[in-house]
Amino acid sequence: MQTQQQIYIKMILDAWHGQNARVDNILATHSDEQLNAAVAPNKNSGIYLIGHLAAVNDAMLPILGFSEKLYPQLENIFLSNPDKSGLEKPTLNQLKKYWNDINSKLKEHLDNTSADDWFTKHNSVSAEDFAKEPHRNKLNIIVNRTIHQSYHVGQLALLKQ
Amino acid sequence: MQTQQQIYIKMILDAWHGQNARVDNILATHSDEQLNAAVAPNKNSGIYLIGHLAAVNDAMLPILGFSEKLYPQLENIFLSNPDKSGLEKPTLNQLKKYWNDINSKLKEHLDNTSADDWFTKHNSVSAEDFAKEPHRNKLNIIVNRTIHQSYHVGQLALLKQ
Repeated sequence: MQTQQQIYIKMILDAWHGQNARVDNILATHSDEQLNAAVAPNKNSGIYLIGHLAAVNDAMLPILGFSEKLYPQLENIFLSNPDKSGLEKPTLNQLKKYWNDINSKLKEHLDNTSADDWFTKHNSVSAEDFAKEPHRNKLNIIVNRTIHQSYHVGQLALLKQ
Repeated sequence: MQTQQQIYIKMILDAWHGQNARVDNILATHSDEQLNAAVAPNKNSGIYLIGHLAAVNDAMLPILGFSEKLYPQLENIFLSNPDKSGLEKPTLNQLKKYWNDINSKLKEHLDNTSADDWFTKHNSVSAEDFAKEPHRNKLNIIVNRTIHQSYHVGQLALLKQ
């Protein structure tokens, strides 16, 4: 018998893993040429969006108190700067390795987070604010990052003609 | 003092309302010409995606046991058939009215759903399956529809040049 707490943690983690599986599937079924193309004229390229999602997932490691980032160099290229920044991007092969490494590490920690720990504060909110806004907990990071990832998956879905 | 259950429900409903506000904002800040354009060459038009999201929200009313659909005619045009089906679409002004009517009705019911009721089964799962998979509750419909909406909001975000 699952408790209600276990049920709602499962709902969110299932949604999170489902979105990441969609990105895995895009990486597995698109050629490098397709991934290097823009999702629409003058919009972000597939490779930029993949790097962006990898950088966001990497940043979850410290926000959730799990570890340091694995690939901190992604932030400048894919979060602080736009696609056409002129900064050198990793190759698609490198990015795929980063994506898998980051998600393996994240999953290991997600699987080991206890039910009550999900409702404790994450590292981007102060103790004072958290006392007033207890919904700003670790599980809410997963909710928001799942929604963010889906936003860009919708764009990546446009890559195939 | 909020219970963990109340905190959790707030997290999900805040995410839901946040996504709908993004669609409201797109409707308020794009011209008809922009909304009638395709999000990318040979892809869905903005108006089709708006109609699609309105149809999905309308279908939540019966799935959550709130009421019949308000605009059942949207299903055939925006869910069962693709953009280029040749079926006559409502005008953008009509669609905006439908969108607002559906979301007002939904919000009224969402606001009146009790905490425990959120964890009961919705109408697209059998009692038998729900006994085995209690995460398939009403709140999970909100989780999944929020993620689905974000997917299309990411596409609608491409409409502006």
